[in-house]
Amino acid sequence: MKRGFASDNNAGVHPDVIKKLLSVNEGHTIGYGSDPYTEEAKQLFREHLGSRTDTYFVFTGTAANVLSLSGLTRPWNSVITAFTAHLEQDECGAPEKFTGCKVLTVDTADGKIDPGMLVRHMHGFDFEHHSQPKIISVTQATEMGTVYTPDEIKKLADLAHEKDMYLHMDGARISNAAVSLGMPFKSFTTDSGVDVLSFGGTKNCMMYGEAVCFLRPGLSENFKYIRKQGMQLASKMRFISAQYIAFFHNDLWKKCASHANAMARLLSEKLKNIEGIKITQKVQANGVFVIMPNDVAERIREKYFFYPWDEQKSEYRLMTSWDTTEEDIGEFVDLLKDELTKK
Amino acid sequence: MKRGFASDNNAGVHPDVIKKLLSVNEGHTIGYGSDPYTEEAKQLFREHLGSRTDTYFVFTGTAANVLSLSGLTRPWNSVITAFTAHLEQDECGAPEKFTGCKVLTVDTADGKIDPGMLVRHMHGFDFEHHSQPKIISVTQATEMGTVYTPDEIKKLADLAHEKDMYLHMDGARISNAAVSLGMPFKSFTTDSGVDVLSFGGTKNCMMYGEAVCFLRPGLSENFKYIRKQGMQLASKMRFISAQYIAFFHNDLWKKCASHANAMARLLSEKLKNIEGIKITQKVQANGVFVIMPNDVAERIREKYFFYPWDEQKSEYRLMTSWDTTEEDIGEFVDLLKDELTKK
Amino acid sequence: MKRGFASDNNAGVHPDVIKKLLSVNEGHTIGYGSDPYTEEAKQLFREHLGSRTDTYFVFTGTAANVLSLSGLTRPWNSVITAFTAHLEQDECGAPEKFTGCKVLTVDTADGKIDPGMLVRHMHGFDFEHHSQPKIISVTQATEMGTVYTPDEIKKLADLAHEKDMYLHMDGARISNAAVSLGMPFKSFTTDSGVDVLSFGGTKNCMMYGEAVCFLRPGLSENFKYIRKQGMQLASKMRFISAQYIAFFHNDLWKKCASHANAMARLLSEKLKNIEGIKITQKVQANGVFVIMPNDVAERIREKYFFYPWDEQKSEYRLMTSWDTTEEDIGEFVDLLKDELTKK
Amino acid sequence: MKRGFASDNNAGVHPDVIKKLLSVNEGHTIGYGSDPYTEEAKQLFREHLGSRTDTYFVFTGTAANVLSLSGLTRPWNSVITAFTAHLEQDECGAPEKFTGCKVLTVDTADGKIDPGMLVRHMHGFDFEHHSQPKIISVTQATEMGTVYTPDEIKKLADLAHEKDMYLHMDGARISNAAVSLGMPFKSFTTDSGVDVLSFGGTKNCMMYGEAVCFLRPGLSENFKYIRKQGMQLASKMRFISAQYIAFFHNDLWKKCASHANAMARLLSEKLKNIEGIKITQKVQANGVFVIMPNDVAERIREKYFFYPWDEQKSEYRLMTSWDTTEEDIGEFVDLLKDELTKK
Repeated sequence: MKRGFASDNNAGVHPDVIKKLLSVNEGHTIGYGSDPYTEEAKQLFREHLGSRTDTYFVFTGTAANVLSLSGLTRPWNSVITAFTAHLEQDECGAPEKFTGCKVLTVDTADGKIDPGMLVRHMHGFDFEHHSQPKIISVTQATEMGTVYTPDEIKKLADLAHEKDMYLHMDGARISNAAVSLGMPFKSFTTDSGVDVLSFGGTKNCMMYGEAVCFLRPGLSENFKYIRKQGMQLASKMRFISAQYIAFFHNDLWKKCASHANAMARLLSEKLKNIEGIKITQKVQANGVFVIMPNDVAERIREKYFFYPWDEQKSEYRLMTSWDTTEEDIGEFVDLLKDELTKK
Repeated sequence: MKRGFASDNNAGVHPDVIKKLLSVNEGHTIGYGSDPYTEEAKQLFREHLGSRTDTYFVFTGTAANVLSLSGLTRPWNSVITAFTAHLEQDECGAPEKFTGCKVLTVDTADGKIDPGMLVRHMHGFDFEHHSQPKIISVTQATEMGTVYTPDEIKKLADLAHEKDMYLHMDGARISNAAVSLGMPFKSFTTDSGVDVLSFGGTKNCMMYGEAVCFLRPGLSENFKYIRKQGMQLASKMRFISAQYIAFFHNDLWKKCASHANAMARLLSEKLKNIEGIKITQKVQANGVFVIMPNDVAERIREKYFFYPWDEQKSEYRLMTSWDTTEEDIGEFVDLLKDELTKK
Repeated sequence: MKRGFASDNNAGVHPDVIKKLLSVNEGHTIGYGSDPYTEEAKQLFREHLGSRTDTYFVFTGTAANVLSLSGLTRPWNSVITAFTAHLEQDECGAPEKFTGCKVLTVDTADGKIDPGMLVRHMHGFDFEHHSQPKIISVTQATEMGTVYTPDEIKKLADLAHEKDMYLHMDGARISNAAVSLGMPFKSFTTDSGVDVLSFGGTKNCMMYGEAVCFLRPGLSENFKYIRKQGMQLASKMRFISAQYIAFFHNDLWKKCASHANAMARLLSEKLKNIEGIKITQKVQANGVFVIMPNDVAERIREKYFFYPWDEQKSEYRLMTSWDTTEEDIGEFVDLLKDELTKK
Repeated sequence: MKRGFASDNNAGVHPDVIKKLLSVNEGHTIGYGSDPYTEEAKQLFREHLGSRTDTYFVFTGTAANVLSLSGLTRPWNSVITAFTAHLEQDECGAPEKFTGCKVLTVDTADGKIDPGMLVRHMHGFDFEHHSQPKIISVTQATEMGTVYTPDEIKKLADLAHEKDMYLHMDGARISNAAVSLGMPFKSFTTDSGVDVLSFGGTKNCMMYGEAVCFLRPGLSENFKYIRKQGMQLASKMRFISAQYIAFFHNDLWKKCASHANAMARLLSEKLKNIEGIKITQKVQANGVFVIMPNDVAERIREKYFFYPWDEQKSEYRLMTSWDTTEEDIGEFVDLLKDELTKK
């Protein structure tokens, strides 16, 4: 199928990751994570996120989020997040079902929460009638293609900790954020006060596998049971671990994410001056949000699939990935211009 | 690491599966299963299990079992299975947590349930104080390395259906059972009255991925939501589907399972006449259960890892896999003899 | 303790209810609802709500709401309600914990939902990533002391049914609403399209006990299991039933609720012209919402306890009940005036 | 209806309890337990169970059991109990649904667990594949009408504590046990190592209401949220508290339970020499288990309702209560004799 702009998870797997998968497929290893590749991968996470990081591999981004929350809550807690967050919109209620917690939302302009928005939900502490707020969850990069600064994250972390709460980061696209900020992962996670992190791999060149990273000691005590009961303990775990080894090796993650981000910028550059097209969000990672005429979108989507974001506003989401090419963008933009004139 | 007898999931991935993974890693496909490889794989399941089979891919065997049960129950139901069943012993309570159901067990001599054993739990229908029995779950091949005949399965299915219940089969090692029986999958599943089947791949030469197969129409209506809420919807699903395409191609599954079963038979042949060793179960699939002196086991396990089954009885489980060699067995048996004389 | 304005559940039990409790305390009856008093009470509900009403008694209002929702949903559904609703604010996450569903909210001016507000959440049908909207839940009278007209309810019911959803009504204060509207219960429930109703008793003169009323056939099939598994099946159920018999006898419910509503009107009449006091909501049932200076409120609450509603706005909630007297109101208003002058 | 032998919860409410209910029905009290009656009742529990007892009122025995377990477990734990236990047979899976835990059972001759039986389940500690044993639950008096000695309880408590587990007691009929042992409650609960106790009231002369008593400090930290989320927080809580005040006043509990136990002994005395009748369990509390011909039982049950216990063995359960009279027993026995001769 043609490369399109539907989602970064429509892309395949980077050859370096494939190569690593082949290389670990030799002989037997103990299952369920007691193998040397898993140890190596966990060590790499400690190097990138801090020496006290405790990492657990799971299969999906939804699982990484839900189990992260489960590790730090009890069912009478609540989790506060943006209305646009993946865990609110795209996990079919998995957070509520698995954790028993209430998920509370705030409306944002660009997918980013600021402390003022949280006042609405930060009350009722110690009052048994009310779900007890326990987690603030941010997405980095956000579902709107925007990126929090370390300072913005720190303000949320400070607020959380002041109230004996935790800060969770959904890092399904954390590589794109790191590249966008030009900073190492650690600076806007561990160093900014994040407590637990869903560290994404699948959307940035891997085949499958995500990581739950506890960034402070004492938070992961029971997590091995949560992962198993959550149906996320891989028997042949070496194959997830191997992918993360490749991911960190030679900064593969950076190459892939830099490329994806650059392609998004190129796409937005080409789109911004086209009449009838409006870009609605800052392009800070690998997503471009555009308003275009519905009928035009309809016709283009037959060739290049992508998703509507807000049908009432005729807003669409275009995602680039590690394998998007300049030709893909050129052809897409040409087609779009063509269709606009037909209108 | 040396190949041992710890579990069939300590083995790696068959080269044919790897080859197929590489071949589908081209360009973009729609995520979450709307791709041609997934369609092809689902068609293969229809060929092997009957034209009305509705198949859903998930990541782990625990998930295949738990979501199968969830698809056919409500929380006030109960599920009846053998005390030795994976879903009772080795899923850390995932069935209860996710389905809300009660899991009831029966004691068996060899991992196989017969209708008489179920009387204990088949009552209280329509009585609101009592969990309502809804599923009988069998494992094929069993956790004890034994295999149900189609007739034995049919008797349980008939009993279930008579009470408006369902028959679930945990087929984590279904290939080993098919080879052992010398029958196609369909004859001891769909044709014997099984309603829903966890069809295993990981233990028989794949990297990851299991399938939930609904064998009769009308049972899977809501399953897409259950899978997503169960955190088991793969974004890059083509890579699970591709493995199953390879699995069925040229009867790879049969070659792998035949080999594993043959190795178990060979191992048991060599063990059965050694003094001080007692084989405790029929060897019908790829597991051999033996009683041996604890201290001997302890010393051998340093070189060839395997698990104790019943520590009080000094009983151990030896599993063979698609890549076990005659040399592995020869060396293991020699070492065992050696250690026995040291005793 | 002095009668105050904290909540209608701070009041005691009406003598007629007590009398009825005594009268049924004779000899033995079968437990769990198979007794003649329960049959009589269920028949009374059919008379008031329609002949097809199927009624189940539970203990608390939270249980009535949560089990109502559970009866009509599966865990991948969502429930849409007002941000101020009891089930969002005051049930400590019981709906999410027990049903597994997502609870979505809309902001309202007066606790009342209108169809336009729901657009935000009424999408993603049939899309497995998204919780499937299944219930709209309204509170009658609302937590803000306002009352829906039958026509307003019908519009919401029609919208729900058009989307294959249900309308739930939290009727913790349904008697106050009926009196306010001057209509029988049926006209703004069954006849307006409500599917399931939490019918409150405790807040309107009873000791304990609420009712879940399914208003259309085919909705309550499994409810007996849900109630039992929800820990809400009363062993000596005759004592809940008896209270509802008293509740309906001689229109006791109407007398009590009329009185409570009248007291709220009287209170608001007396308050509305006091300088420094602002009434913030229409007074249609038995609640009066007022803004008053924080320090004044603080001092009065030592004598007459009541709850802050919105501390940032210095808004307080005053509830009247079946036993509030004109003297209570007179003394309270005098004290308030006094304290205001001290300011 | 005639007094029968169906269950102690078919009886009504003792006049002393009624009197107390009336006496607290005056004016307003703060809801949800912040009232003086609740404080008084909690103090009475401290007097009877030890000064460190922390007591929470709930509505049903099922709730008392389930919430007790919930307070001391996480979902990956297991609870071990007798196969005949109420929480296994008669709670419709509420323990699994609410706690997420696995419930494991042992077969007993008389409803009483001894340490040897538990070996089967006391393993797999720290192994993430296996539910972690956390609670041993005993019923006192048992569902078979037998009673544990303090020493028997202590042995189980010691075993539990040695493994970092807890001992729960389902005391739905704790008064009958205390009377049978001739001991204060404390001697076979707190002093014997019980950690959490479901203290029953409804079956021994109350209208509704049970208590969850944490007997050691540090166990109840989050219980207020568990109770609320469990839909068991009573708004007009004074009416449960008042009943417990009456229950302890002048040893009402003892009078009622002594009478019920005496009636059971009388019944068994009269039955034991009748030909064709066999008493199958020791009569230590208020239950008598008898084998009688099915057709005879069928005919008697039309006049005196009671339940079959084991239909295959033609075994029936006869329960006496605080209001059973010698005449009830005389008439019942006469009828039984009559019916036996008709046979």
